[in-house]
Amino acid sequence: MTKIKAAIVGYGNIGRYALEAVLAAEDFELVGVVRRNIQDIPTELAAYTVVDDIEKLGKVDVALLCSPTRAIGDLAEKILSLGINTVDSFDVHSDIVALKKRLDNVAKQHNRVAVVSAGWDPGSDSILRTLMLAMAPKGVTFTNFGPGMSMGHSVAAKAIAGVKDALSVTIPLGTGVHRRMVYIELEAGANFNDVAKAIKADSYFASDETHIRQVDSVDELKDVGHGVHMTHKGVSGATHNQLFEYSMRINNPALTSQFMVSAARASMKQASGAYTVIEIPPVNFLQGDLDNLIAKLV
Amino acid sequence: MTKIKAAIVGYGNIGRYALEAVLAAEDFELVGVVRRNIQDIPTELAAYTVVDDIEKLGKVDVALLCSPTRAIGDLAEKILSLGINTVDSFDVHSDIVALKKRLDNVAKQHNRVAVVSAGWDPGSDSILRTLMLAMAPKGVTFTNFGPGMSMGHSVAAKAIAGVKDALSVTIPLGTGVHRRMVYIELEAGANFNDVAKAIKADSYFASDETHIRQVDSVDELKDVGHGVHMTHKGVSGATHNQLFEYSMRINNPALTSQFMVSAARASMKQASGAYTVIEIPPVNFLQGDLDNLIAKLV
Repeated sequence: MTKIKAAIVGYGNIGRYALEAVLAAEDFELVGVVRRNIQDIPTELAAYTVVDDIEKLGKVDVALLCSPTRAIGDLAEKILSLGINTVDSFDVHSDIVALKKRLDNVAKQHNRVAVVSAGWDPGSDSILRTLMLAMAPKGVTFTNFGPGMSMGHSVAAKAIAGVKDALSVTIPLGTGVHRRMVYIELEAGANFNDVAKAIKADSYFASDETHIRQVDSVDELKDVGHGVHMTHKGVSGATHNQLFEYSMRINNPALTSQFMVSAARASMKQASGAYTVIEIPPVNFLQGDLDNLIAKLV
Repeated sequence: MTKIKAAIVGYGNIGRYALEAVLAAEDFELVGVVRRNIQDIPTELAAYTVVDDIEKLGKVDVALLCSPTRAIGDLAEKILSLGINTVDSFDVHSDIVALKKRLDNVAKQHNRVAVVSAGWDPGSDSILRTLMLAMAPKGVTFTNFGPGMSMGHSVAAKAIAGVKDALSVTIPLGTGVHRRMVYIELEAGANFNDVAKAIKADSYFASDETHIRQVDSVDELKDVGHGVHMTHKGVSGATHNQLFEYSMRINNPALTSQFMVSAARASMKQASGAYTVIEIPPVNFLQGDLDNLIAKLV
């Protein structure tokens, strides 16, 4: 079997779990890890090639982009231009269509494939939302997140002046409404009331019920478990009250990186261009012979 | 908008609901219904063309095959040969790969598309099983059915000598183990113990805990509500204890026929050949502009 040659680009929270997911996938071969700092290599990377530029890795089929969301557009363009497929977990829902169009052009020029927003939301949850509408086209779908740590909200809170460290936990209140519990450590001299007011005014928090709590150590509270509870009540044909429910309780970065690896596998079977995960045949995310998978899963 | 011209072939339990699902889909046009008996037309069909042969309908893009599972192979071959896409809800899991291969040849010869086993199990549930493995490739998936009426088991029980009418209800006992509650009306002179023994020995029931109950009227007990509860506990990368759960409570023929209509829509976008639903991009099951669907669902 010719293995899929994968590179991990960015070695933060997602990148660490992506390493485990690539190593666990029998049909993948890890070509190397790309990170800015190649002087101070963590123990678990000692056995692998670590470079500061993907061009130093030789032949790569697909790059798992584990960099922050705002860096994804430029990074993916550059890597696609080198003739390498890309997979990302870009998570700003409102900008996904634009990112896809941008990468679609580059991918087609270079005869490669980009899979965008292949985490869990956007990502696997998006497939659930699509499937629920295919089963009952009318009706309301609610996506309830948590309880769990929101990476985006934690970063936003930490960026507020006076905040030394922050953890924002998403609490589902039902029907897609969420409470934000924000735990902060203050910088010396910062005023709690001023900081709390600034956090609540931030666009990440302004429209949700937000509670701020000052703590001695944010680090002691950190847990990357997360979850979703999705419901759809709708109409199939003319029949009302069709009820669908999906839930998961997961380690967040482990699921994100695993789904990125599954999407990287799928990228090898798509015609050139950029795709969201709802545009890809689900079976292509899996390893194995097609007929065997059909016999086992259909 | 050019509408998708659909025909409903077979007008039993699924066909009736397929009529409602086609009429509810704005992008579909019902060309007509094909059934053996065209003398005695039910009221709800009065406004539509009813024929005994699909060739009498003129141009048809896709036929929804609402005939019994064992008739699907020959019927689909014939209709594909006429240059019409087919969708079925063929439900013998062990024969799906063979049916797909058979129809793939015919579909390619005639440059058409067949979507096989597009009900809910096999069908939408198959997509869930696939997705759960894409999120956590290792681990056990359990599909628990019911409580609800099993069409296949009811037909099998009714076929036993001495049984006038039968209803088999599937009761989930967890971890994919099911109890069969079989309610029967006896023919005059039939012996309950002999009939019960024969039902329990039938291949549909032999491997499950089966209870037979004699009743005065099976019809009074019939309810086409059904459900599924699917669980997957598995490993993403190297991270164990990832927990996924899916459940639905639905009107069975309404969901089956709605998903067939969604699959019929998807059939219009596939290259020629035969497909199971896990081989089709999920978004193609839905009506609407792709970018709008991505913006709304991803």
